[in-house]
Amino acid sequence: MRNWLLPEYIADILPATARQLETAKSSMLELFRTAGYELVLPPMIEYIDSLVAEGDDSLEMKTFKLDDHLSGRQMGLRADITPQVARIDAHLLAERTGVTRLCYAGSVVHARPAGLMSSREPLQVGAELYGFAGIEADLEIIRLALATLDLVGVQNPRLDIGNIAIFRGLAAAAGLDPALTRELFAALRSKDAAEVALLVQGVAEPYRSAFVALPELYGPREVLDRARSRLPSIPDVDQALGQLQALAGALQGRVEISFDLTELRGTAYHTGLMFAVYAPGWPDELARGGRYDNVGRRFGRARPATGFSLDLRDLLRILPERDSARGIRVAARHADAAAGEIDALRKAGEVVMIDYLDESAAALNCDRELVAGPSGWQIVPFN
Amino acid sequence: MRNWLLPEYIADILPATARQLETAKSSMLELFRTAGYELVLPPMIEYIDSLVAEGDDSLEMKTFKLDDHLSGRQMGLRADITPQVARIDAHLLAERTGVTRLCYAGSVVHARPAGLMSSREPLQVGAELYGFAGIEADLEIIRLALATLDLVGVQNPRLDIGNIAIFRGLAAAAGLDPALTRELFAALRSKDAAEVALLVQGVAEPYRSAFVALPELYGPREVLDRARSRLPSIPDVDQALGQLQALAGALQGRVEISFDLTELRGTAYHTGLMFAVYAPGWPDELARGGRYDNVGRRFGRARPATGFSLDLRDLLRILPERDSARGIRVAARHADAAAGEIDALRKAGEVVMIDYLDESAAALNCDRELVAGPSGWQIVPFN
Repeated sequence: MRNWLLPEYIADILPATARQLETAKSSMLELFRTAGYELVLPPMIEYIDSLVAEGDDSLEMKTFKLDDHLSGRQMGLRADITPQVARIDAHLLAERTGVTRLCYAGSVVHARPAGLMSSREPLQVGAELYGFAGIEADLEIIRLALATLDLVGVQNPRLDIGNIAIFRGLAAAAGLDPALTRELFAALRSKDAAEVALLVQGVAEPYRSAFVALPELYGPREVLDRARSRLPSIPDVDQALGQLQALAGALQGRVEISFDLTELRGTAYHTGLMFAVYAPGWPDELARGGRYDNVGRRFGRARPATGFSLDLRDLLRILPERDSARGIRVAARHADAAAGEIDALRKAGEVVMIDYLDESAAALNCDRELVAGPSGWQIVPFN
Repeated sequence: MRNWLLPEYIADILPATARQLETAKSSMLELFRTAGYELVLPPMIEYIDSLVAEGDDSLEMKTFKLDDHLSGRQMGLRADITPQVARIDAHLLAERTGVTRLCYAGSVVHARPAGLMSSREPLQVGAELYGFAGIEADLEIIRLALATLDLVGVQNPRLDIGNIAIFRGLAAAAGLDPALTRELFAALRSKDAAEVALLVQGVAEPYRSAFVALPELYGPREVLDRARSRLPSIPDVDQALGQLQALAGALQGRVEISFDLTELRGTAYHTGLMFAVYAPGWPDELARGGRYDNVGRRFGRARPATGFSLDLRDLLRILPERDSARGIRVAARHADAAAGEIDALRKAGEVVMIDYLDESAAALNCDRELVAGPSGWQIVPFN
């Protein structure tokens, strides 16, 4: 009943949780700042062709359309911030030729919810690194994602890593046509081994066997050895497996890693390594990211790019409980005379509440009171 | 040229200012917290009839419309947060019968810009007080608005105060029909004395003279004395003038006040006292607010209400310059071995940047470097 005035999958965030969410957001932005990530605030609305790349049907479906009365052109309400940040790197910060690190935190709006438990208004927080193609950049982003979740108390995270370059490299080497590539991609995504076998019947070896093997190539580090023996040695595959091996080495002992060579659930713009972070008790991933090189091309500059994002609303249930610190009551008749004292207390971080209606300590959430004592203002218990 | 990819009156906020804006927002929310205002985060989109009250043409014009694919109903993109907060007070927090103080900070989107220099995406920050009709509540809100502007360094603010209850009371007492009331309102708003005189030709005394006098009733405190002599003594007028007198007394010596009895530029939902804060060098008001009693009625609970809001984007140009503190460079080859040291430095607030491309000190914005010394990691100058 509580939400009857609001559309489905849309909710207010009320005082009990709003302050925690704001605090968590601030601490994430502070972590990003100290890791060299500069904050940008792209707009809520843009022309639709800036927000959604041609052919990205999934993002297009999620994006609300708006008519711009000023230009007559179609605008959209952002459903994802990453393409906006790529636009900023490519266009507005084009004088920077080295590594550019950017971060953001803001609402995005989805025309359709991503799932039954999803909000249509995620609070997307993320960080992106442009200008360096090496696996060290992906490692930096993965570590930052893990540190971000650690900040808000996520316990025992698990990392799923895949690399879409393996599938793309095999499809190109096997000369698959676009229609078959799409169908095979869908079958692999849903790990439908029977459908995969059927689709690749006419594909030449060694690619046929490689596609059939893919759905089984998931699990701990040993998967990479199995992949080397079951996939043909072509440059794309060798490089992708090499990257995964390097990550496994660098992260060993710090986080549980699971590899999944059909982990293809990124967005249409991903081009290489992709990852998702899970934790016990959450059905869906808590953060996800990966490499999306050259997304900036349509904005005038193709650059290596990797990043991650999360929906802060997903984390609401583990954010620390509302601060139980109670405030200091001031009777309305004293408010003027005590103005200096009240200012000083507030500057010191105390909540000082003016009481107009002689409300109870519980209603005011106050446990102390500012009163006129014999030698000036003094704070006494209030209950 | 910089904004060619974005619609008119829409802009990105880039690193140079984004962090300052975020910091200013946090300090405002902290001020609100210590004054007892609880944070709420209403959604960006809602059903249009929640966002815009019937008859509020001005807000309706500003509001982008969206089709909700799930319900088939029309939704809107919020153009103002105050009605959302009133909905929350009326509906979700209905168990609270005393004073409720709420605050917020978030983007709103306007289909049409408010002026030639306005953004279509203001960052609205504000505070609202529900449940107390006394002038002390308005005074608290005005003081909070002034303190908020003071936080970000606004100098020599000037307060304009009006009270729409004077016009409404006179119109009701004179028995004006709705059409004439609307026309007269518009003429007074534009201080068109000739048009006012023409419109009230058929109105009975003492109301005719009162309407003719209204456009001249602006200026410092003495205006209130002139108003008492030139306006008829009816309860609405007497009460409104009494409130203005009380405010003048309470704020005397703290801020320059100007009264304007045709200050009618609030939104359609305002019902009584209204104010705006100006400062030298700004063409438009920096904050505005006022009383909007009973707005919650359409959400199930009519309550006294007063509040203020500002657009943080208006204040961008006086926010402190970008923090010039430079960071600490770490060569990529040391990143793994120095991970513990890097973490500790970041937790202490230092920006520690991993350098993959051997970039210059200027490109990295770093003035120090973490290097392996004879007895462990040490920080040395970098330039």
